[in-house]
Amino acid sequence: METLSGVAATQELVGQWRRGGLSVGLVPTMGYLHQGHVSLIEAARAENDKVVVSIFVNPTQFGPNEDLEAYPRDKERDLKICEREGVALVFAPTVEEMYIQGAATKVGVTGLSEVLCGRFRPIHFNGVCLVCSKLFNITKPNKAYFGLKDAQQFFILERLVKDLNFDLELVSCPIVREPDGLALSSRNAYLSPDQRKAATVLSRALKAAKNECEKGQRDGQALTKLIAEMVGAEPLARLEYAEVVSTENLSQVTTITSSVLVAAALWLGKTRLIDNFIFSPPVS
Amino acid sequence: METLSGVAATQELVGQWRRGGLSVGLVPTMGYLHQGHVSLIEAARAENDKVVVSIFVNPTQFGPNEDLEAYPRDKERDLKICEREGVALVFAPTVEEMYIQGAATKVGVTGLSEVLCGRFRPIHFNGVCLVCSKLFNITKPNKAYFGLKDAQQFFILERLVKDLNFDLELVSCPIVREPDGLALSSRNAYLSPDQRKAATVLSRALKAAKNECEKGQRDGQALTKLIAEMVGAEPLARLEYAEVVSTENLSQVTTITSSVLVAAALWLGKTRLIDNFIFSPPVS
Repeated sequence: METLSGVAATQELVGQWRRGGLSVGLVPTMGYLHQGHVSLIEAARAENDKVVVSIFVNPTQFGPNEDLEAYPRDKERDLKICEREGVALVFAPTVEEMYIQGAATKVGVTGLSEVLCGRFRPIHFNGVCLVCSKLFNITKPNKAYFGLKDAQQFFILERLVKDLNFDLELVSCPIVREPDGLALSSRNAYLSPDQRKAATVLSRALKAAKNECEKGQRDGQALTKLIAEMVGAEPLARLEYAEVVSTENLSQVTTITSSVLVAAALWLGKTRLIDNFIFSPPVS
Repeated sequence: METLSGVAATQELVGQWRRGGLSVGLVPTMGYLHQGHVSLIEAARAENDKVVVSIFVNPTQFGPNEDLEAYPRDKERDLKICEREGVALVFAPTVEEMYIQGAATKVGVTGLSEVLCGRFRPIHFNGVCLVCSKLFNITKPNKAYFGLKDAQQFFILERLVKDLNFDLELVSCPIVREPDGLALSSRNAYLSPDQRKAATVLSRALKAAKNECEKGQRDGQALTKLIAEMVGAEPLARLEYAEVVSTENLSQVTTITSSVLVAAALWLGKTRLIDNFIFSPPVS
């Protein structure tokens, strides 16, 4: 396994692979890898000759009062996991390598970035679009893999890739969960034991909502009310939002007639967690 | 020579070339080709195995009251010129192919895009950044060629390429002029015979300013005053701006101590023309 921190050296190496007819799968991460990341690496390995994992805690996607400094990091452990999983190249740049002096370029997707998490993290998705545009140009993947825990991110990046004509395919992978239902996240490391127990309320509330959908509930507001009530019953948790939106354009859905994303965010102390499910009503 | 209007077919063809070890030079144009474009094609031919010319009058770089509809077009003639000049591929997409339904992605360079022409064309350079990002991803060039008549555009695109890590080199080519000094531009076709004669005031004023620089003038304001006075003496012309800025960051320069861009824009009736020169004081 190669480990590179330089942009030019990475472009050179993946360029050689691509010219040699080898396909490249990219798994972009902020490190502190967990089984969710591993599932992305496995999907990438199954479909590509070479797997590139990027490890970069991207400052431009953190707001001024967010957890950039606190974000958990363990590069040594990450590299061991990548090695074990058959990764060909880890690209782990410094902030200075990624954001050079005088950097002034902005990339963003309007509309999709301003709803759901975007209402509460106004610069977040522009930072994601910027860093992913860079990572795509640096690692030249045929396919790039993203987990559906960040479903809004995936929909925004699909728009970005189409709109900027990046010649690559985005692949979404299912949410990976703890045995008790909690969606895996590097941020779960922030939770105290009590908060960790309370955190399951998010996946439980979403699962309850999903059951209702499957039983025929088509009223978006009834679903968000159910989620709000279940989260409300957990004293340690504070719901930030629960919404039912179209997977087409992330606009709010009153009555479910086609595929929807049901997404929620909550706070446990200073830790913000997100989760979601996608539901497509059976065609009658 | 191939002529393609489809994004996917173009990516496929240039992808084949690149995988086959052939280098690609891109000359992005809005068509209505003149000798300035031809000089870019010649430069691209000299340095690359395959030359791609894009022809696309890009709506996102025109303001609401600008000349998008009126912009001169002659595709048949353009194709003949490209054929004659040994171009391998003309990429000439429709607006619908370039801006698909639901397109919502914005790209821009802050700061550099808000000065000089950007003060008067507030959305222009964001449109240029967007379309060039797309053209780079569609035509995968090793090098892309731009004329220095649009010097601000070149500086902005240099920033874009660095900031987004496009794996390509931007090449600037000198301004090509009519025998009487007028910088070539597709927009010169708008000029009436009287305006055409009056238009030379722009290059004459800039040449006078350049002579002053070469004689030792280092006061930015003295140069802009000279340009304003010369343009002011031409009844058909109205100066939009004349500025002396650093080539480093396009900030205004009071006293010239390093490389500067001296740029001006003027109106002749409804036609807007630009011109400039770059001056580097000799190191003493």
